[in-house]
Amino acid sequence: MVYNFLESSTDKKNSEIVIVGYPYDSTSSFRSGSRNGPMALRLFSWNLETFSNYQKEDIHTKNYFDMGDVELPYGDIKRTNKIIYENTKKLLKNKKKIISLGGEHSITYPIIKAFNQFYDDFILIVFDAHADLRKDYMGVKFSHACVIRNCAEIIGTKRICQLGIRSFTSEEYEFSKNLLYFSEDLESFNFDLIKSKKIYISIDLDLLDPSNIPGTGTPEAGGFTFKEFIHFLLKFKTFDIVGVDVVELSPDHDPSGISAAAAAKLVREIILFL
Amino acid sequence: MVYNFLESSTDKKNSEIVIVGYPYDSTSSFRSGSRNGPMALRLFSWNLETFSNYQKEDIHTKNYFDMGDVELPYGDIKRTNKIIYENTKKLLKNKKKIISLGGEHSITYPIIKAFNQFYDDFILIVFDAHADLRKDYMGVKFSHACVIRNCAEIIGTKRICQLGIRSFTSEEYEFSKNLLYFSEDLESFNFDLIKSKKIYISIDLDLLDPSNIPGTGTPEAGGFTFKEFIHFLLKFKTFDIVGVDVVELSPDHDPSGISAAAAAKLVREIILFL
Amino acid sequence: MVYNFLESSTDKKNSEIVIVGYPYDSTSSFRSGSRNGPMALRLFSWNLETFSNYQKEDIHTKNYFDMGDVELPYGDIKRTNKIIYENTKKLLKNKKKIISLGGEHSITYPIIKAFNQFYDDFILIVFDAHADLRKDYMGVKFSHACVIRNCAEIIGTKRICQLGIRSFTSEEYEFSKNLLYFSEDLESFNFDLIKSKKIYISIDLDLLDPSNIPGTGTPEAGGFTFKEFIHFLLKFKTFDIVGVDVVELSPDHDPSGISAAAAAKLVREIILFL
Amino acid sequence: MVYNFLESSTDKKNSEIVIVGYPYDSTSSFRSGSRNGPMALRLFSWNLETFSNYQKEDIHTKNYFDMGDVELPYGDIKRTNKIIYENTKKLLKNKKKIISLGGEHSITYPIIKAFNQFYDDFILIVFDAHADLRKDYMGVKFSHACVIRNCAEIIGTKRICQLGIRSFTSEEYEFSKNLLYFSEDLESFNFDLIKSKKIYISIDLDLLDPSNIPGTGTPEAGGFTFKEFIHFLLKFKTFDIVGVDVVELSPDHDPSGISAAAAAKLVREIILFL
Amino acid sequence: MVYNFLESSTDKKNSEIVIVGYPYDSTSSFRSGSRNGPMALRLFSWNLETFSNYQKEDIHTKNYFDMGDVELPYGDIKRTNKIIYENTKKLLKNKKKIISLGGEHSITYPIIKAFNQFYDDFILIVFDAHADLRKDYMGVKFSHACVIRNCAEIIGTKRICQLGIRSFTSEEYEFSKNLLYFSEDLESFNFDLIKSKKIYISIDLDLLDPSNIPGTGTPEAGGFTFKEFIHFLLKFKTFDIVGVDVVELSPDHDPSGISAAAAAKLVREIILFL
Amino acid sequence: MVYNFLESSTDKKNSEIVIVGYPYDSTSSFRSGSRNGPMALRLFSWNLETFSNYQKEDIHTKNYFDMGDVELPYGDIKRTNKIIYENTKKLLKNKKKIISLGGEHSITYPIIKAFNQFYDDFILIVFDAHADLRKDYMGVKFSHACVIRNCAEIIGTKRICQLGIRSFTSEEYEFSKNLLYFSEDLESFNFDLIKSKKIYISIDLDLLDPSNIPGTGTPEAGGFTFKEFIHFLLKFKTFDIVGVDVVELSPDHDPSGISAAAAAKLVREIILFL
Repeated sequence: MVYNFLESSTDKKNSEIVIVGYPYDSTSSFRSGSRNGPMALRLFSWNLETFSNYQKEDIHTKNYFDMGDVELPYGDIKRTNKIIYENTKKLLKNKKKIISLGGEHSITYPIIKAFNQFYDDFILIVFDAHADLRKDYMGVKFSHACVIRNCAEIIGTKRICQLGIRSFTSEEYEFSKNLLYFSEDLESFNFDLIKSKKIYISIDLDLLDPSNIPGTGTPEAGGFTFKEFIHFLLKFKTFDIVGVDVVELSPDHDPSGISAAAAAKLVREIILFL
Repeated sequence: MVYNFLESSTDKKNSEIVIVGYPYDSTSSFRSGSRNGPMALRLFSWNLETFSNYQKEDIHTKNYFDMGDVELPYGDIKRTNKIIYENTKKLLKNKKKIISLGGEHSITYPIIKAFNQFYDDFILIVFDAHADLRKDYMGVKFSHACVIRNCAEIIGTKRICQLGIRSFTSEEYEFSKNLLYFSEDLESFNFDLIKSKKIYISIDLDLLDPSNIPGTGTPEAGGFTFKEFIHFLLKFKTFDIVGVDVVELSPDHDPSGISAAAAAKLVREIILFL
Repeated sequence: MVYNFLESSTDKKNSEIVIVGYPYDSTSSFRSGSRNGPMALRLFSWNLETFSNYQKEDIHTKNYFDMGDVELPYGDIKRTNKIIYENTKKLLKNKKKIISLGGEHSITYPIIKAFNQFYDDFILIVFDAHADLRKDYMGVKFSHACVIRNCAEIIGTKRICQLGIRSFTSEEYEFSKNLLYFSEDLESFNFDLIKSKKIYISIDLDLLDPSNIPGTGTPEAGGFTFKEFIHFLLKFKTFDIVGVDVVELSPDHDPSGISAAAAAKLVREIILFL
Repeated sequence: MVYNFLESSTDKKNSEIVIVGYPYDSTSSFRSGSRNGPMALRLFSWNLETFSNYQKEDIHTKNYFDMGDVELPYGDIKRTNKIIYENTKKLLKNKKKIISLGGEHSITYPIIKAFNQFYDDFILIVFDAHADLRKDYMGVKFSHACVIRNCAEIIGTKRICQLGIRSFTSEEYEFSKNLLYFSEDLESFNFDLIKSKKIYISIDLDLLDPSNIPGTGTPEAGGFTFKEFIHFLLKFKTFDIVGVDVVELSPDHDPSGISAAAAAKLVREIILFL
Repeated sequence: MVYNFLESSTDKKNSEIVIVGYPYDSTSSFRSGSRNGPMALRLFSWNLETFSNYQKEDIHTKNYFDMGDVELPYGDIKRTNKIIYENTKKLLKNKKKIISLGGEHSITYPIIKAFNQFYDDFILIVFDAHADLRKDYMGVKFSHACVIRNCAEIIGTKRICQLGIRSFTSEEYEFSKNLLYFSEDLESFNFDLIKSKKIYISIDLDLLDPSNIPGTGTPEAGGFTFKEFIHFLLKFKTFDIVGVDVVELSPDHDPSGISAAAAAKLVREIILFL
Repeated sequence: MVYNFLESSTDKKNSEIVIVGYPYDSTSSFRSGSRNGPMALRLFSWNLETFSNYQKEDIHTKNYFDMGDVELPYGDIKRTNKIIYENTKKLLKNKKKIISLGGEHSITYPIIKAFNQFYDDFILIVFDAHADLRKDYMGVKFSHACVIRNCAEIIGTKRICQLGIRSFTSEEYEFSKNLLYFSEDLESFNFDLIKSKKIYISIDLDLLDPSNIPGTGTPEAGGFTFKEFIHFLLKFKTFDIVGVDVVELSPDHDPSGISAAAAAKLVREIILFL
């Protein structure tokens, strides 16, 4: 019984998939705690079977390695970004497919920056309750509330799709019109937009309804159920997914553990379609 | 950063809408704690944007003032009723639209009594899991379990509609047939019944499923999701809403805070259609 | 105000229905705590009306007695099985209809063993998130993770239907094909399969979504809502139900109490269709 | 395994000691929840041995019966007082020694009123963090914050000793000088003051430090440890104790259960010196 | 009923004492959450009397104003420091005595920087479990783990006394020898060291034992009780205290609220000796 | 940042000390949950410095390896005992000093059995609130409530000292007279009894007061503070300690984490005197 992701391989070198945790939560605007996300997700992964009822396949058909958490300097977002960026580059250089576990959503920015050096035209698909399109948040440019806006500075707005967004300012609402795609629901998404493109998927768990993910920093009523989301997500299976992140799990805000249980199940499914 | 409702105005005089808390929970039958409802709702309101994704409008288009909580004598329901009644009258005299935050559902009775002196033929729309139509509860006439029956003594049964009710005694079930409208669902409501009427809306949060509002005094399985409710509630936007109350938030029973988050979002939407 | 099931009879002799708790949780694989299930279920039953909104009938039309919890030797599954088996036989000898409250799912095995001596061709209907069809779990044959496989040893696979299962190993998935019926959903069930048969129903509460039952030992994302389940369960009303168990309520993992509230409501409905 | 006090007798008639719960918390000024006190105390009593390490005696040398909780009308303090008063009188008529479990401290008033009709010169010993000597609390005369002042109206100030008090207004501080005894500590108590008197002991659990009793309505830093208190309390063993109450256990505010565990242990010791 | 400190004045101008909250927790090394400290402290202050049992004096003899929380940019420690520094300077210019509420301990640095411009030879008395004397923490100079080292850069080591410290690295242990005073206990302190000096007191609540303050970011077993500390702290009453801070209350880690209750009581006592 | 014990070595072969977790809790009599003890203890160890304030020494002067948790078959105490016994023997064969982390106290039995084969006359020092001297508990011989009685069957009563015991039946109290030493306090212990003996120390964390260790299976009021215990424990530093276990940490019952924090600090100190 170990505290890495469910029955993960111990052979880093030959693994095709690497799971890595970035336990950072210093810019959280409402409540902090997502630093404990990766740990809780791993612990609850042991509650799962390795066989997926959705995909009818066992994750042991994949070779996945869990490299644990990267130590980050709380309170120093710039250096944190640099560390995540360097770590991502190193993994990409080694041809790994990466599942990054947050921590807060701000971690997606340095990851995307690194991916952009290896894959020059991937599409960023963002699932989130919040648009995260602010220019800055109380003067902090690299806040989790600005992360997709920051990504847009790197890859441009036309390579970003935001799905399931249900919270934004009027300015963000205006800005969202520049994106390749933006909608409050999931089902209306036009998959043709991303046909034959490489895909990076960023999942902010607060996309899901607070009843399904109570353990998150900024719970926003009126979201999707796990069931609705997993069935939609699986539609990406036929695409070439180059990387995924799962962020904003804040387990201390959910003594029942159901948030971590759901997040771990998501990661199991993601392993299978990477 | 203050502890009133999200970015509320500090100008009581010129505000059209007043938010007021009645932190009373002395007659709670199963478990108490709703006295902390208004406080929690306010704190979680700061987790929200001021822009509504549902109504595509910012609450700053409205002038809303939060007068805080009224101090109430725990254990003395009669004097509590009197204080709420007087405060409501005073606000109505000043032409305010009032959003009253409970506290237990019993607070609706003195509010309705006051409203009845200013608006002589408004319709009371009640959203609730429980019928609250008992004559008395263990001998306590002004119990939260009797509040709508007590309201009926003031405004008559034919000005009351109960929606979404899923818990009642056989006596209450019989009595409910006297009301203008009563149903266990939401969708079948006939809006013609209230055409061109003034409307007062009382929302007992346990209408929502316990998964959405775990923090309430008498959780009743099998309720509505926030999503289902908010879409239904918004249908009242075209009506002349004279007042609203949101009651039975008991935040100590929900360490995740999702109940307060949902309640705060409801109040944001209500501000916009008042 | 007592701590037995809601307004239950004190007349054991003349009661047709007996409620009994088996507070056992020693083989729990992920997290323990279901020993407190029966107690919490009873306490939250007092939050309910005795009148069912679904069946429009009062449980006082039934004569139900709550015999409390049976004391069990933690850590000794064999003797525990024996005690449950003997207690069940004794109740069946007295012509009682039994509602057994877990405790973990392993309690179903000795119950079924006893039922099999009194009813020779009943069908076992299992609602669960997990198949529980392992041969053994870490060498423990009578683990909760093997309970239905163990039942199959007694009554054969062709008298077992599993509904709503969403977690299994590939071996269990194979084995499930031997059952009379197995499916991941509820609605597709063919009631003709059990026409005119006696029915025993075993309800593992983790069938329900973790948002509805956070307080359970092995929460599995992607389940059914209480609403979906209760409406499906009521379809069994016309069948001859000889016994029911409700297991895996672990209240300490749900400080909000909504899991116990839902479980208690289930038992209320079950009383009415026994 | 039952939910009454640890291995209590089922023979009410021949028991010398009766345990009774008054689950009332409607006048609580800061936070409510003590209605669940008696239940939690009973549940945690099963964590104890029946043998006292302090008194080296087994409680089975006493014949104690647990009559459960008396149902009380929440929100109606006057009728609640009457029910408690009548119940106490009835028990005293039957020559029982009574251990009353709160609920809030207000329950002591009707109990003392009843005791005063049977024992005409007993001394009331109060252990508490708060003086509870207000004339009224926000206009509520029978508030828990006034209970000892109310008792003084019945038995006079010269039959009341308050020990361990560490919270009071300046008015209460003045009033306390009228009592037979009042002090902020325990040890300086002069037992000669009560020599050869009958004694009634009222224990508000918030006397103990919040670290020992976190689960209480009005936690007040700087109290006594359980160890300090139990050793002091045992000095009363040689006195003629006619009744005891243990109040203000609010278990929902203490998820660890240590408050209920301590309260149950107190009751075990009290049984032995009654 | 408002959410500022217990019955505080509304007259900022004429108040001699100002209470201000700095809800910052971005550099927290183990677990975050102290941003909610000021709010919780204020809420629990309403559980207190205004009369001090220790000092036998009412805080209404003082004129204290609560200016609420200052909004701070999470994740940007430099700008946070600047805002706190400017706010402190402004208050000092207006001749206020300041009680600053954390937030993490890092807030003490900008406060001391401002005080140093107004009082040129005050002594900094630090109560803490941790030495906080690191040069940097994972490269973050302004981390809460370095705060006293940073203060020493401003006012020198010879104006700093650390009391009650029970956690440090060997390097910190060496460095501590440069301070005016450093000890693991409280009682041995030599008050002559600070005779006739102005005093600034910084109280990291984790000085207290985790049993007394479970709600803190870095709980360290083996601390002082509230009782021990308050009696020691009151010895400073005769000194000229120019400012105080109370930091590292993390209420979400203490569902019982006893940490906030103790912290609020401390502030009440501090008001009286300012 | 890894989930093993604080900065432990990765070199198993050359480590002198091995830390191992036995996450077993199937015989827990009151409430289960100690299976999560080792994990929580490890996580909170990262809250500590490696330097001991008590011993003024850094644990890096020792070479300690954390081998993680051993997987155990829940519900099968005999096989569990065998696995622990074999693992202990293997470590002893490799000349390791072992710190075993529970799990419930029952794990001490197989450990002692193994130690008895390598060290033929060590003394077993037990710190505990409970005597654990029952012959069986509800028929379960290897229950945690019998563990020291079972140890006595292996090493005899005259090699066992029990300290700080405050809960026992009258039978256990009688039996305790056969031991080398038994007392309810710590301080009166006569160290001459164990002069020049090898020592094995078993620490049931419920020895400590529930205020210090709320997260344990059977909290027993009236215990020792961490401070009292650590100072007493350090007196064993000059003895030849051959092994230590720390058991009964049940972190889910303590949302504040202070129990795990204290347990981790104990283990740090133990590493230094092994």
